[in-house]
Amino acid sequence: MPEAKAFDRVTAVAASGRRDSSDRYDVAIDPEWTIDGRPNGGYLLATMARAAGSALASAEGPDHPHPVTATAHYLAPPSPGPAEVRSEVLRRGRRMSQVRARLEQRGSSSVEAVFTLGRHDPGAEPWWTDLEAPPLPPMDECVRAQGVGPGGVELAIMNQVDVRLDPATAGFTAGRPSGTAEVRGWLAFADGREPDALALLYAADSFPPATLELATLGWVPTLELTVYVRGVPAPGPLMVRQRARLVQAELVDELCDVWDSRGRLVAQATQLAALRVGGASRPPSGKSGRS
Amino acid sequence: MPEAKAFDRVTAVAASGRRDSSDRYDVAIDPEWTIDGRPNGGYLLATMARAAGSALASAEGPDHPHPVTATAHYLAPPSPGPAEVRSEVLRRGRRMSQVRARLEQRGSSSVEAVFTLGRHDPGAEPWWTDLEAPPLPPMDECVRAQGVGPGGVELAIMNQVDVRLDPATAGFTAGRPSGTAEVRGWLAFADGREPDALALLYAADSFPPATLELATLGWVPTLELTVYVRGVPAPGPLMVRQRARLVQAELVDELCDVWDSRGRLVAQATQLAALRVGGASRPPSGKSGRS
Repeated sequence: MPEAKAFDRVTAVAASGRRDSSDRYDVAIDPEWTIDGRPNGGYLLATMARAAGSALASAEGPDHPHPVTATAHYLAPPSPGPAEVRSEVLRRGRRMSQVRARLEQRGSSSVEAVFTLGRHDPGAEPWWTDLEAPPLPPMDECVRAQGVGPGGVELAIMNQVDVRLDPATAGFTAGRPSGTAEVRGWLAFADGREPDALALLYAADSFPPATLELATLGWVPTLELTVYVRGVPAPGPLMVRQRARLVQAELVDELCDVWDSRGRLVAQATQLAALRVGGASRPPSGKSGRS
Repeated sequence: MPEAKAFDRVTAVAASGRRDSSDRYDVAIDPEWTIDGRPNGGYLLATMARAAGSALASAEGPDHPHPVTATAHYLAPPSPGPAEVRSEVLRRGRRMSQVRARLEQRGSSSVEAVFTLGRHDPGAEPWWTDLEAPPLPPMDECVRAQGVGPGGVELAIMNQVDVRLDPATAGFTAGRPSGTAEVRGWLAFADGREPDALALLYAADSFPPATLELATLGWVPTLELTVYVRGVPAPGPLMVRQRARLVQAELVDELCDVWDSRGRLVAQATQLAALRVGGASRPPSGKSGRS
């Protein structure tokens, strides 16, 4: 049997054997899937989704193997190491089911999440859309995100994945932010694991903050992340576009859209994150002409 | 003492006196704040936010009177009448706190929500934004949403609020959808209650589905709603813009942005809703030139 790919290994859940009113799963938060030592929020969300899916699958009912919606509030960053996910099936439906999950570490709550689970038809096509994939240069003409970010922050996770930024939105990597709050590019797992519906929960939080293209600002801790998985991605790298719309009162929203290698929109996400602008100079506003 | 305004009356919560591990509040779901007899999702979210805020205020700690984030999964529509909100404080922070809330009726879960609560500075100004309020005609040149919608569906809630649609996005009211998945216009409470941070949770789900401008489709039941409250609105009517981006597999996403009468972005929301397209003819895609 081939060794499990990294993403599958680090998101693994094991029924703890302990039972009370909720199903409990042991997880091991990996030190490599971190930003400055803190676990990436999308990685944690995917891990919790696996626990939610296991809780649902452990009893009778229609098979709902895919995430459809996911919402997470990040209460406190867990440390790499052992943790536990407690899940509660809220509703079993014919077409979809809902499950609540909480990540706990040493008795303290880290992340509170709710999922809708269902089954995506791999052949689904849009009935209507106006959200086209951005035109991206080929991967080998893009700028690979490195394991060390602006200001020397350690981005260990960037060694696990292959994030390639469109040079037009990678100004921050050379200390020259474009002034437009957008980053876009390609995403693949470094070990060649193909994307699936679960991986989209990570993809939705995989890119550097769009605010890095506004000014020399720090990484942004996510307060809340909502992901809608809209389909099963085709094999091949994903296309990701992340944009911020309002920076105010040390909070920023980010919209993230994800397309598969065939150009189909497969995930949409939004997050609210904390951001210290401090003394950073303010870029001109409203200069982008986005669709 | 003047009589309470409608929105304050219908979202009122009363500590039930029963206590277990969570704080419990009695609520009365109003039959007038409904679409086809089903309570509006934003109205329910605002009611639950009041319970969450009461749970937080009932113990010591910094005062966090305003919603900052709200996520809700709608499990089953409650009926108008008595219901209960059970809340659980997840974390008390210095700047923000998080509270979980569940709406139950007759022992069955209806809505599962999580809130971040904090305090918005009424004088906060954007550090950066590119999201400007849409140019809208004056309210009296807009089309008021009526208490009966397309297909004869009863929209009782439209008698409680004053939704005025920009004629450019009100084609559906005359059976001539524009073909662009956008509705925009003005929102006020019918009895003159001024908007506040709480009311923005309702505002984010107050407009007709943007898909009505694509084709003659039905109302859309919300599966999940996420709202970010970005500020305290100034007095006066709100400006609301709601857009859909992808209709696929009988699901549609809707993005909603809300500005106050001074043109400040005060709320951003996204929802995923169920939509039966049935035999409706498919409009051309991607024809809009939005910013």
